[in-house]
Amino acid sequence: MMQSSAIHSPFNAPNTISLVAGEGDAEIALNAFDMCLIQSGIANVNLIRISSIMPPKAEVIPLPKLPMGSLVPTAYGYQMSDVKGETVAASISVAIPKDKELCGLIMEYECVGGKKEAEDTVREMAKEGFEMRGWEIDEIISIAAEHTVEKVGCAFAAAALWYK
Amino acid sequence: MMQSSAIHSPFNAPNTISLVAGEGDAEIALNAFDMCLIQSGIANVNLIRISSIMPPKAEVIPLPKLPMGSLVPTAYGYQMSDVKGETVAASISVAIPKDKELCGLIMEYECVGGKKEAEDTVREMAKEGFEMRGWEIDEIISIAAEHTVEKVGCAFAAAALWYK
Amino acid sequence: MMQSSAIHSPFNAPNTISLVAGEGDAEIALNAFDMCLIQSGIANVNLIRISSIMPPKAEVIPLPKLPMGSLVPTAYGYQMSDVKGETVAASISVAIPKDKELCGLIMEYECVGGKKEAEDTVREMAKEGFEMRGWEIDEIISIAAEHTVEKVGCAFAAAALWYK
Repeated sequence: MMQSSAIHSPFNAPNTISLVAGEGDAEIALNAFDMCLIQSGIANVNLIRISSIMPPKAEVIPLPKLPMGSLVPTAYGYQMSDVKGETVAASISVAIPKDKELCGLIMEYECVGGKKEAEDTVREMAKEGFEMRGWEIDEIISIAAEHTVEKVGCAFAAAALWYK
Repeated sequence: MMQSSAIHSPFNAPNTISLVAGEGDAEIALNAFDMCLIQSGIANVNLIRISSIMPPKAEVIPLPKLPMGSLVPTAYGYQMSDVKGETVAASISVAIPKDKELCGLIMEYECVGGKKEAEDTVREMAKEGFEMRGWEIDEIISIAAEHTVEKVGCAFAAAALWYK
Repeated sequence: MMQSSAIHSPFNAPNTISLVAGEGDAEIALNAFDMCLIQSGIANVNLIRISSIMPPKAEVIPLPKLPMGSLVPTAYGYQMSDVKGETVAASISVAIPKDKELCGLIMEYECVGGKKEAEDTVREMAKEGFEMRGWEIDEIISIAAEHTVEKVGCAFAAAALWYK
């Protein structure tokens, strides 16, 4: 019985990964966050925040159609601000290993600043994570969003894991 | 095998939702939080924090008896304070759609202030989330708690998803 | 079908618990956090943060070999600092009940300060949690880490739940 536990068995670790990003602005922080999710295509599921591994051999795919209300393991970063005119950014990177038996490493970064700064930083972070493990990188993929605040603004970037 | 993954299949998204709220006060923040959970009836399970969707057709029910230690997908908000005499509040709302094929939207809000302010706000937030989706609301349900701080105080409100 | 939902059935609550701790230092907070995870032996899995219960009769074991990328329910605390020379600490305790039908209570605590302070505090917190429930403690186990900051430093302690 334990062996067939869906979220805990190795053969049931998620096997796809999709990068998405978005921005939003509203009166209240959580509505701005919700707008980011709408723009990212993941507003109608339940994100379960994870720290931050791409399971071995997971396939990088465009965001699949996720059933509404599903529990979706997702690594994400976001930057909120209520300073009108300020630009905020969030970025996600995934370092994919040369050795396909190894896992990939997802990094997130958020800052007051632009998306180029966020994306450059988060790619470096993934590189450093691989160096700390003594692993070789095949490639790094990444995505970023930025937003200039009107009321309460948010930039958001995520890596959603799923099943194929 | 993948299709029967329990937490990821559409037919296994949670199908009940229960609103609870509580308050607590202690020497240390996490004990105050724990008192909120005790008062809410969810202190002896493992909350997995979700962002914040009621699966389509989920039934609104009083909190069911949850087996101790279970992993319970839960949206929640809380406000902590160590300012003696200050009142803090937390509230949860769920906007339920007219179209029963759609999901509901859970919003949480916390503030220094009273429960009426928190609950009014969080109901507006759910309304705004539906407007952003272009969906029509059947009804909004909500709950709130407030607490006046003695040492370290906390107000807490949650929507726990489960199975029936 | 619902009854066999892996993460939600009582018979599928995790049945092992392992305490780990670590420290790290890097240019960027998340890399320092990642170093903590590497040192703790849980860097290559996906931590799902939980609030904070040891399921009844769970066995306390050394960290098992976790398949890379797995979704691992974990209670954790961490303290980050960018103040060079400052010492930070994090600690986890688990209060195990005399009555084996009851669950255990996991507490986490983090502070600017040393690991003895953190560990003493977190053990008191577990005791208080049991008092609030009116339960008797069999024993309290705990772990702690401390770190003196160079660039951005982090101390981390966790209780990882798993299956046997």
